[in-house]
Amino acid sequence: MKNVKIPEVAVSRLSVYSRFLTQIEKSGVVRISSGEIAAGTGGTPAQVRKDLAYFGEFGTRGVGYNVAELNKEICNILGIGKKWRVILVGAGNLGSALTQYAGFKSRGFDIEAVFDNDLNKVGLRLNDTPVMAINRIYDYVVENKIDIAIIAVPDKHAQDIADLLVTSGIKGILNFAPVTLNIPEDVQVRNVDLAVNLEILSFNIVVNNKE
Amino acid sequence: MKNVKIPEVAVSRLSVYSRFLTQIEKSGVVRISSGEIAAGTGGTPAQVRKDLAYFGEFGTRGVGYNVAELNKEICNILGIGKKWRVILVGAGNLGSALTQYAGFKSRGFDIEAVFDNDLNKVGLRLNDTPVMAINRIYDYVVENKIDIAIIAVPDKHAQDIADLLVTSGIKGILNFAPVTLNIPEDVQVRNVDLAVNLEILSFNIVVNNKE
Repeated sequence: MKNVKIPEVAVSRLSVYSRFLTQIEKSGVVRISSGEIAAGTGGTPAQVRKDLAYFGEFGTRGVGYNVAELNKEICNILGIGKKWRVILVGAGNLGSALTQYAGFKSRGFDIEAVFDNDLNKVGLRLNDTPVMAINRIYDYVVENKIDIAIIAVPDKHAQDIADLLVTSGIKGILNFAPVTLNIPEDVQVRNVDLAVNLEILSFNIVVNNKE
Repeated sequence: MKNVKIPEVAVSRLSVYSRFLTQIEKSGVVRISSGEIAAGTGGTPAQVRKDLAYFGEFGTRGVGYNVAELNKEICNILGIGKKWRVILVGAGNLGSALTQYAGFKSRGFDIEAVFDNDLNKVGLRLNDTPVMAINRIYDYVVENKIDIAIIAVPDKHAQDIADLLVTSGIKGILNFAPVTLNIPEDVQVRNVDLAVNLEILSFNIVVNNKE
């Protein structure tokens, strides 16, 4: 990999390219052009070429990319080859949806335990994943060397859960609670704000109707 | 608004700034600097200033921004002042989580009806939102001038639902199914791929551990 800082938005697009490549690889396509990747992922050919160029030379001019090789490279770059150990905190509707979300496991993110403060749920299974008590988080993360925790608890509990996770030595947090968390710099955090998506969509609708 | 093409990623950050501004406005803060906005949203002051500059001059050098005015401007730009009429297709766990998601309603996106093909759910309410049969989508969208539909159905049904929504004249689709949809150009579509977030997070963990 070239020693350059890759913008997060490029990483995000690579992830989308990879999902698209996996889809078409299954359907038997062997070679693909940047134009076809762009068409399949809603981008432009120039953007695709620029994103892939962050990581060196992939394609051959006029011949395009080998689908399987390109996808393997992107997966290596994004750390998808590795199996990540993931826990989820919050066994509500969102947590339940996330344990079922097919896109996680197929990409190497296997939610292996769910934690909740509702004693009626503790000891049961949520879509086949065991539900444990919140006070077991610390020991579980330490003993099982958990990499990533997903926070899907109500807003008011999110910071407390984050503090507990940081203390237990978690490397990354994916936060679904719509609040800004205070997290030390050596722990990676990513906030998923679902309303942002609707706002971008509504902005695009407004702009489109003005044109 | 200046007549420039605003990158989607800037729109996405504006949405985050606005949520942050709403939060601190409630706590009584009147003025704020680009540095404080950056600190509260995980960006850099230069990035904040650049994003806000897409829309003209907001702040005063050395004095900062008026929180309420800045937030109002951003909301106008993003179309948040407007009430958007939204329906949701798919009354599973994800759909249920989305109808409860506080971040939607507070930003003007009110899910007013849910559609599902499970006749055991039709006629009931999902977190207070009525559940209707899929075959009523067309009439409902036309009669109620629905702007946006959220797709939260299993992958294999997503394209059929999208086709139905397009036919009924929907303006925008927020798609949670991890498949690429074929949508005509005049309908705005935005794919929410939850795995992308985990992949960016894992990439950041890998990069951080190398440093």
